[in-house]
Amino acid sequence: MHDLGCIVLCAGQGTRMKTKRPKVLHEAAGKALYAWSLDWALALKANPIQAVLGYEKEQVREGIENHYGKQVQTVVQDKQRGTGHAVQVAFENLAPCKRVLVLYGDTPLLTLDTLKALCLLQENTKSEISMLTAYVKNPFGYGRIVRDNNIKEIIEERNASAEQKEITEINPGIYVFDYEFLKAGLANLKPNEVTKELYLTDLIAQAQKPIGSIEVSDKEIVGVNDMVQLAKADRLLRRRINEEWMREGVEMLDYKTTYIDSEVKLSPGVVLEQGVILRGACEIGPGVRIGAYSVLQDAKVGENSIVGPFARLRPGAVLESDCKIGNFVEVKKSHFGKGSKASHLAYIGDAEIGEACNIGAGTITCNYDGQKKHKTKIDNGVFMGSNATLVAPLHLGDSSYVGAGSVINQDVPAKALGLGRARQENKKDWVKK
Amino acid sequence: MHDLGCIVLCAGQGTRMKTKRPKVLHEAAGKALYAWSLDWALALKANPIQAVLGYEKEQVREGIENHYGKQVQTVVQDKQRGTGHAVQVAFENLAPCKRVLVLYGDTPLLTLDTLKALCLLQENTKSEISMLTAYVKNPFGYGRIVRDNNIKEIIEERNASAEQKEITEINPGIYVFDYEFLKAGLANLKPNEVTKELYLTDLIAQAQKPIGSIEVSDKEIVGVNDMVQLAKADRLLRRRINEEWMREGVEMLDYKTTYIDSEVKLSPGVVLEQGVILRGACEIGPGVRIGAYSVLQDAKVGENSIVGPFARLRPGAVLESDCKIGNFVEVKKSHFGKGSKASHLAYIGDAEIGEACNIGAGTITCNYDGQKKHKTKIDNGVFMGSNATLVAPLHLGDSSYVGAGSVINQDVPAKALGLGRARQENKKDWVKK
Amino acid sequence: MHDLGCIVLCAGQGTRMKTKRPKVLHEAAGKALYAWSLDWALALKANPIQAVLGYEKEQVREGIENHYGKQVQTVVQDKQRGTGHAVQVAFENLAPCKRVLVLYGDTPLLTLDTLKALCLLQENTKSEISMLTAYVKNPFGYGRIVRDNNIKEIIEERNASAEQKEITEINPGIYVFDYEFLKAGLANLKPNEVTKELYLTDLIAQAQKPIGSIEVSDKEIVGVNDMVQLAKADRLLRRRINEEWMREGVEMLDYKTTYIDSEVKLSPGVVLEQGVILRGACEIGPGVRIGAYSVLQDAKVGENSIVGPFARLRPGAVLESDCKIGNFVEVKKSHFGKGSKASHLAYIGDAEIGEACNIGAGTITCNYDGQKKHKTKIDNGVFMGSNATLVAPLHLGDSSYVGAGSVINQDVPAKALGLGRARQENKKDWVKK
Repeated sequence: MHDLGCIVLCAGQGTRMKTKRPKVLHEAAGKALYAWSLDWALALKANPIQAVLGYEKEQVREGIENHYGKQVQTVVQDKQRGTGHAVQVAFENLAPCKRVLVLYGDTPLLTLDTLKALCLLQENTKSEISMLTAYVKNPFGYGRIVRDNNIKEIIEERNASAEQKEITEINPGIYVFDYEFLKAGLANLKPNEVTKELYLTDLIAQAQKPIGSIEVSDKEIVGVNDMVQLAKADRLLRRRINEEWMREGVEMLDYKTTYIDSEVKLSPGVVLEQGVILRGACEIGPGVRIGAYSVLQDAKVGENSIVGPFARLRPGAVLESDCKIGNFVEVKKSHFGKGSKASHLAYIGDAEIGEACNIGAGTITCNYDGQKKHKTKIDNGVFMGSNATLVAPLHLGDSSYVGAGSVINQDVPAKALGLGRARQENKKDWVKK
Repeated sequence: MHDLGCIVLCAGQGTRMKTKRPKVLHEAAGKALYAWSLDWALALKANPIQAVLGYEKEQVREGIENHYGKQVQTVVQDKQRGTGHAVQVAFENLAPCKRVLVLYGDTPLLTLDTLKALCLLQENTKSEISMLTAYVKNPFGYGRIVRDNNIKEIIEERNASAEQKEITEINPGIYVFDYEFLKAGLANLKPNEVTKELYLTDLIAQAQKPIGSIEVSDKEIVGVNDMVQLAKADRLLRRRINEEWMREGVEMLDYKTTYIDSEVKLSPGVVLEQGVILRGACEIGPGVRIGAYSVLQDAKVGENSIVGPFARLRPGAVLESDCKIGNFVEVKKSHFGKGSKASHLAYIGDAEIGEACNIGAGTITCNYDGQKKHKTKIDNGVFMGSNATLVAPLHLGDSSYVGAGSVINQDVPAKALGLGRARQENKKDWVKK
Repeated sequence: MHDLGCIVLCAGQGTRMKTKRPKVLHEAAGKALYAWSLDWALALKANPIQAVLGYEKEQVREGIENHYGKQVQTVVQDKQRGTGHAVQVAFENLAPCKRVLVLYGDTPLLTLDTLKALCLLQENTKSEISMLTAYVKNPFGYGRIVRDNNIKEIIEERNASAEQKEITEINPGIYVFDYEFLKAGLANLKPNEVTKELYLTDLIAQAQKPIGSIEVSDKEIVGVNDMVQLAKADRLLRRRINEEWMREGVEMLDYKTTYIDSEVKLSPGVVLEQGVILRGACEIGPGVRIGAYSVLQDAKVGENSIVGPFARLRPGAVLESDCKIGNFVEVKKSHFGKGSKASHLAYIGDAEIGEACNIGAGTITCNYDGQKKHKTKIDNGVFMGSNATLVAPLHLGDSSYVGAGSVINQDVPAKALGLGRARQENKKDWVKK
């Protein structure tokens, strides 16, 4: 029997986002909202993990399946009949386990440490319910925690007395349940008289033993319900990511305008200048400097390379060590061998470039002929004059040389000079005429 | 008889700005400081609206007339003899009305809602004076509000007792006056003994009836007197603008580095990446994504188009739907038909581009011959190879094709290939020599 | 005899930075950490100034000697035996003076005003020790100041009673000593029993006369021990620099994303748009506007010039007045005469450009042939068509003209037209085939 099962509620629409996308597909720090919870569940070795889908279920399922494959199962809550109902739907498909963690698809600010502590608390105390609580400045709308030292009950806003409304310790709704308690409890849930929905919170009234609780910072429990909250969650997450990397020896010239997605891998001694954006699964080697206002996505940059300012590395850009990609240069699906450079104003796409090449300013690989994409292969030690136009498919041999301003549409053999430009003529006194 | 008249004081020099420009011509969130007040006056349907000019009056008048035409009248206060004198000068030209709102040309942080409430208060209470007040942390320099529940008097800093200096409710100087009260009051104003100036605040002592007041946040009443205050006002205004758009479904990857001028129009589902600057009267359609560090001014971007990162759209850039303007591309006074693209490193100026065109990387429209600007006309479905140089005036026919690296200075007929480049030759073993 | 001597402790490794560079070589606001203290010492006319080196001493010495020459002497503390030992090492080489200021190589947030006040206090009171103190929120780890009005003693964390641990006035370790007191005191220092190190703080117990003290803001005394602290110090310093320039009449469209190194010189009426980075010893003349996301290093920009957005001026870029450098333009080691322009997508390196020249979009100076850098000389009034490739060495005469798309590798005489491009041909109905 597995130890921990996990149910992640992802069925809500998120109407206050005011976009067509389901809420849980919006991203914070480059990761879909639902994926924060699923990643924690995986890190906690939860098995099975059930994601409950509802609004735009096909779109959400596709996102989950693409990323998690069979690690995460999805179930559908056809009608939105409350959190208790959502957990019922998932529970039916949940193989028996010792305890069940309930998470949401819109709370990216929680931390793995918090969830570990919560699971451990339930494990150690054998409580029926272990839950998070938080003190918040403005408790309006939250369920208030009523205590006589232990948690006595949760009072919802609508049922709270004036005195109870003053309570600032609230229920964020994150629980670890004893499996058997949850099973029995879900079976006993009654619909709310007014809304006819089933509420997970009502399980608390069913507990016979003391409820375990861990108090967390109010910053961890903020959900995302509109674009303002999403924007603020994003900043908090990025702040955490940046501080972690700085403590690992990454230097940021302005940590408030440095944007590092959660999957990015950096190394000590990396310097990130102002405004650098690292998206997706970038890997940046030791001693690399990324200049101001560079945007990298799913790119690899080898040791001691220099990138930017104003560089754009798109997916599939791979730089070996000691490379240089300078300002106003775009690289897409291309490999730069050790020590190769493209320092100024260039577009390099679908190219395989050897070692110690110099790609001149203004060089453009014409990889698209209107029908198909073609490849450019450049061997080692090639020197390319400025403003070269390279019409792919094309092969430039070892140590070949391309004259400045040339259009090159035939292969250039090793050590040869490829020239494709007109001879200059001067027209005297032309300006007078 | 009109209901509401409005006087906006714009005569001050703003010496602490330390620039040659008059203070009220500096901008916050892309709008001249004086224009914030004039726009509120218009929104309140004030008529007439009098702007009082003084320092660099010609420059300020030109700014107002260009933007507002006859909606706003200007009067000149020849010598700076105090706020009371400024209002006297304007009042002489003010057609009779029921009440008069007095505003300033340097308080952009007020809100229309506040001013609406103030006008309504005066209308409902028939007070001689209705005014704003605010509690501030550091009241030094402000007139303090002395109350016995109602406002009793305003004590200026220089006249305040030690006890009165502790008062933190202050007078921001924003009033709605009963017209007749103001008329009589202005006639009775006496010059200050020391400065010989006339102060508007002295009208308060003339009031016979209770003075109406509305307390507003201290953030609303901050004036702009130096560049630091201007910078802070700008950030607060942009923050408000951004939060409003986010609540309408606009996604911002970093709302703290997204700069949207007050006249910009966005749509739900728009995504603005980090560092996007939208100036002037930009209009951005639904589903558009603007990439990081793009700068747009007075540009229109149609539905589902993708712009940037590092794109610059200058005034007159118009993209229909499904267009793409990529990195390091500048577009000026040009129209892109549906589905047309310029994805990399290009300058497109004074061009009319049809639908489904592909503008290659490095393409440049040579619209200027040193004497005049010329136009480039590109029909539908044109494919342009990279590094093309298009010498205007020029016409490329439907579905024509331009070879990479070509200089094109003659029209290309429909379905023809235009080529303007030298044939390549390879010089063997050239590198050895 | 000199008045003031200064000892700056720069020997630490800074292991928590987690980089190979010694801590004091990291930069805040573009200036090496140690240089902040050395610059204050120079401004206070301290002489001699001794920098105590230890970790990576050669690297640090090189940095100091390159910048300060003989103004600063360096001594080496071979083993890290505590602050008292470091000062002993320096003191041996210190010529007699009246008083000695002790500073650190990692406290860039102090201010010259504070240090001036501290020196003056010691001078006026003839105290044996005058020192800074600060109240901090979290005093953990700091020596606490125990007072009976005067400073009685400093209690280190490890020796503090529970009551003393509550004290929030702490010792930042910045002192001015009477020279003779310091001499005798250093001779009497005893190693700590546990660590065997000598501590400078132990001198306080040797004082016979009242100790002078000045309380400073807790923001001034923060040291830099890891990348997070470095990043925060950098922001605070840049904030101070920006506010100073704004008060001098420099307009910043977003002062939170404007980065001005400490040596930069600006003028009133300069406008810096969002995201501008000014590094090193830039000098920007009156009325200049620097567009968004421009990066300048060691560049000079003359009166009323316009730069950017997205411009990069590298070291040696000099613009006279009324120049324009536009978007996606890089300038390196080049001089632009009055009124010359390069408005779009260009690389200008090692060029001397006269007055009133127009450098077309896409122009590239080919200054590097794979072996050496060559110069481009452009006289006055030259007009260059777009996408020109200029192969240096090259000379373009007065009022000459270069055809768009030309490769120019021979000099063009004055008033001549240089053309280097193929004639266009159109292939009819090519697209059908």
